[in-house]
Amino acid sequence: MTRNPLVSDAFVDLLLFDALDVGALTAFDHFREHDRGTFELWMQSCRRLAREKLFAAYRPMDSAPPSLVDGRVRTHPLMNELWPALAETGVINATRPYDVGGQQLPFTVATVASFYLLAANGAAYSFAGLTTGAGHLIETFGDQTVRSLFLEPLYNGTFNGTMALTEPHAGSSLADLTSTATSIGDGTYSIKGSKIFISGGDQSFARNTVHLVLARIDGAPSGTRGVSLFAVPRERPTADGGWEHNDVHVAGVIHKIGWRGIPSLALSFGDEGDCRAWLVGPSNHGLKCMFQMMNEARLLVGASAASTATVAYYESLAYARERTQGRRLGDTDPTSKPVAITEHADVRRMLLAQKCIAEGSLALIARSAKYSDTAQHHPDPDERARAGLLLDLLTPVAKTLPAERGFESNAMAVQIHGGYGYSSEYLPESWLRDQKLNSIHEGTTQIQALDLLGRKVIARGGQALAHFCEEVERDLASAQSNGVDPSLTDAVRAALARWSALTQSLAAKGLAGDVLGMMGHSTDYLDATGSLVLGWMWLWLAGATRQREGGFFDGVRATARFCVAREIPRVHSLADIIERADPAFIELDERSL
Amino acid sequence: MTRNPLVSDAFVDLLLFDALDVGALTAFDHFREHDRGTFELWMQSCRRLAREKLFAAYRPMDSAPPSLVDGRVRTHPLMNELWPALAETGVINATRPYDVGGQQLPFTVATVASFYLLAANGAAYSFAGLTTGAGHLIETFGDQTVRSLFLEPLYNGTFNGTMALTEPHAGSSLADLTSTATSIGDGTYSIKGSKIFISGGDQSFARNTVHLVLARIDGAPSGTRGVSLFAVPRERPTADGGWEHNDVHVAGVIHKIGWRGIPSLALSFGDEGDCRAWLVGPSNHGLKCMFQMMNEARLLVGASAASTATVAYYESLAYARERTQGRRLGDTDPTSKPVAITEHADVRRMLLAQKCIAEGSLALIARSAKYSDTAQHHPDPDERARAGLLLDLLTPVAKTLPAERGFESNAMAVQIHGGYGYSSEYLPESWLRDQKLNSIHEGTTQIQALDLLGRKVIARGGQALAHFCEEVERDLASAQSNGVDPSLTDAVRAALARWSALTQSLAAKGLAGDVLGMMGHSTDYLDATGSLVLGWMWLWLAGATRQREGGFFDGVRATARFCVAREIPRVHSLADIIERADPAFIELDERSL
Repeated sequence: MTRNPLVSDAFVDLLLFDALDVGALTAFDHFREHDRGTFELWMQSCRRLAREKLFAAYRPMDSAPPSLVDGRVRTHPLMNELWPALAETGVINATRPYDVGGQQLPFTVATVASFYLLAANGAAYSFAGLTTGAGHLIETFGDQTVRSLFLEPLYNGTFNGTMALTEPHAGSSLADLTSTATSIGDGTYSIKGSKIFISGGDQSFARNTVHLVLARIDGAPSGTRGVSLFAVPRERPTADGGWEHNDVHVAGVIHKIGWRGIPSLALSFGDEGDCRAWLVGPSNHGLKCMFQMMNEARLLVGASAASTATVAYYESLAYARERTQGRRLGDTDPTSKPVAITEHADVRRMLLAQKCIAEGSLALIARSAKYSDTAQHHPDPDERARAGLLLDLLTPVAKTLPAERGFESNAMAVQIHGGYGYSSEYLPESWLRDQKLNSIHEGTTQIQALDLLGRKVIARGGQALAHFCEEVERDLASAQSNGVDPSLTDAVRAALARWSALTQSLAAKGLAGDVLGMMGHSTDYLDATGSLVLGWMWLWLAGATRQREGGFFDGVRATARFCVAREIPRVHSLADIIERADPAFIELDERSL
Repeated sequence: MTRNPLVSDAFVDLLLFDALDVGALTAFDHFREHDRGTFELWMQSCRRLAREKLFAAYRPMDSAPPSLVDGRVRTHPLMNELWPALAETGVINATRPYDVGGQQLPFTVATVASFYLLAANGAAYSFAGLTTGAGHLIETFGDQTVRSLFLEPLYNGTFNGTMALTEPHAGSSLADLTSTATSIGDGTYSIKGSKIFISGGDQSFARNTVHLVLARIDGAPSGTRGVSLFAVPRERPTADGGWEHNDVHVAGVIHKIGWRGIPSLALSFGDEGDCRAWLVGPSNHGLKCMFQMMNEARLLVGASAASTATVAYYESLAYARERTQGRRLGDTDPTSKPVAITEHADVRRMLLAQKCIAEGSLALIARSAKYSDTAQHHPDPDERARAGLLLDLLTPVAKTLPAERGFESNAMAVQIHGGYGYSSEYLPESWLRDQKLNSIHEGTTQIQALDLLGRKVIARGGQALAHFCEEVERDLASAQSNGVDPSLTDAVRAALARWSALTQSLAAKGLAGDVLGMMGHSTDYLDATGSLVLGWMWLWLAGATRQREGGFFDGVRATARFCVAREIPRVHSLADIIERADPAFIELDERSL
């Protein structure tokens, strides 16, 4: 193994088997053929793939991003080996049912295994993650024709898949998208329009690409209620079972600062008036269907962000152990031997802050994944509904916390490397660049904030909020009974109470018609929620160590203490800002900026 | 003018003439030949150079960084035009006395003018800033021989200058440097050693390069007390008035992620045993002498960081005004026209946060520069001493606040650009990369924090601290009498009291021998000091508007209100963390990380 484990196996074991108790999932009928052994086997396959193949390809793929040659994208030659390895390992359809060729693994297990793949090479894995999402949309909403055309080749890696939502003029505002779909009478449609920032929108390692595209059928209502979902392959099936050009063109390659192994493209559909599309799901319900893939992709971005922070944490930890420099605080004897920089208080602070953010984010993503498994497969419909609300509430946090705080964390990995940190001879700067995309793509932080406060946390007249508070309370009580210092659980409990009261008072403003009063500080609200959730995650993890002895467990408990000391004051400080909400900055004439 | 002004002229006028009252400097004998007219003239020359020449070269220089060809560094060909333009404008020696060919301008005026040059092209300007620093060292400490050899060609741009401190094994720990100097009997020395991260250490636009090098004379004591300062030219003078090879070699070019127009080099001195050096200042007092250049360079880094944040702020403001997308909060009519994104509450927040950090940082650098002028040229020795202590106290803040918070600010400029923000077709990502260096080079944030808390704020038995509090109090009182909302001045006053008490309690721990208790959270302390200083700066600026009407003045006052609302809670939150200082994280066995 390299000196960088990518993700800590001990941490993953604690998370999966102690904290999440994934073994219990095998009690659900859907997972009855699994046991801890099959889970371990899957983890092992993914670890091996990550450490032996994907990580070695990371730097070459970052250094030589995809290029446009004769209208087609040429991805890095190493992808010609990695893609079959990903597909043959079963990464694309690990969670999909046996009847479509999958392994029917819990989403929780697949997600935690994906941390290794994402930490090793986020771009390479993301081709697979997007393909899973595209396949899953077709599996869920597609009719027999669409399924028979695209499902198998997506799940076995013959094709790759994408989601094509954003249009150049509209950005995040999907209500304003203008791509059109015209019925041509045989059940298919003719598509015309431009899309931008399409990740994996073309490649040179798989036979074909299937885009899941949002467009308006002629005569559809304006806004989001007139949007339909289509499968649009780069090459379409011919009557004789072959494939032919489908009038999908790469209009440009975005030169990205990070996540450079996977291309982000401007695509145009139907320039020649001959782009055929298959409707997926009911017409005018496209956005609702697409939300399945968008929510999966948001967790994927969160997982990618958390893993990018984790791999950089372990790199800076290894560096700090090797690098000797200076002396301990108070030692002024110049003839004494320089110490490893792990001995410096501020390097310690940066290491623990990274561990807190990075592994706390991994825990949040894994926990969200378990709510997803529960929401889909728990025998009790009430439990399913409850888990569904919790998953919905946590998704914007699970997307944003790892992205925004992960960027801080990645900057600390650079800082620990000193002058070497800003040099491209070392890896941390590339992870910092990779991380900067995660607060933007798949719904910006601002979009996630509007979603959390404007929809998710107030869902079902307060039920989502109540469930969330119950979950936190339950874990705090359990942590306390497992020996976690009550001053820590008390601090998180007080922050939860403050946050919950704040949520209710903001919701009351909204109900009274003061939309700006409710939503004007939604990003701060999301940020505060993130710090609260980090505190929750670490006390949950600390409780799961059950006072066991050992360096690893000491580290988890120390990080929990560190997390509460640093994150909980942020909850209060952000709540102060939100409560004192001053509309002056919004009312200011923009010419005064 | 381009759509990006680089720096706001209205803001600079407010800062220089209303807030700082630089006109008053002409009462000092040293500046008696100046008046507001000569200051304006200088500002105008630098603005023009920045806007008409330097900015256009920024992107090409970022895209094609210097390369190593046959052992020499080839800088970007555009530098062949920019360097003479900088030298002929008088940028290198603007502040130096008439008798060495300078214009004897106040450092305050030169610094504020440099904001434009740094915002336009930080790398290009930095060649000049480092040359000024090297020249100034020789001017101050050099004997007649050294001065006659190097001073004029440095100040007129025939040569460029560098500072060469860092060695690969020692990093920030200058006590451990091992380069040696052996007297060769004719008053010169033979140097041997390796240096790394030497900015501007070679180039292809000027005749020669003079390195100001720290090394140990044979037999000198260990630690910092055995370090001497030398001038080491790449080519040395010959008996017949020519120049010959001086055994200085470029060992490697660092591939930096930002600030790419200026090379950062590994240099080796004396590989052939024939590297001649001239002592500058008394032997074994090199570090003390070098601190003059280091402190100037720290303000230069702060100015560069602040300017990098400013130019990105104006770029994102221009973009936000042009870009229409979505609707105001509460407007759910999809047929209404999309609005400019300046209308969105969260874009507003990010614009004001950038303005707060970027222009607040400019104000801090300019204020520090005025303390420098006062410390050197005020007729009253007590005023000189007082200003000197304030400059010393503020220097680590003026270096770090713009670097660390500027990085946040630059990330927001990227965020406002959405998907375009992470694309290298737009400029904000390059400024984000540039900014990341500023928390590392010229003394990392951690080094600045140790300097602030361990030396500067406790200097002269509390005098520095007392002076600082008086300065803030005076500006708060003045702001209040100029119509600034007393709730704002009260908030900053309360934070000042809290911070001052915290400082005293930390100092008391130090005096009692608890070094870790005092210094363990020094970076948090520096961070808290930065937020306090930002609040101070903006109330000072708001007071300087003197209730004048107009969009620009409204903007300054709104930013002051925004700054207090957001930065002052950070002071308290960080003070909470520092006060609850938990040594557990430092005592943790490093194997548990």
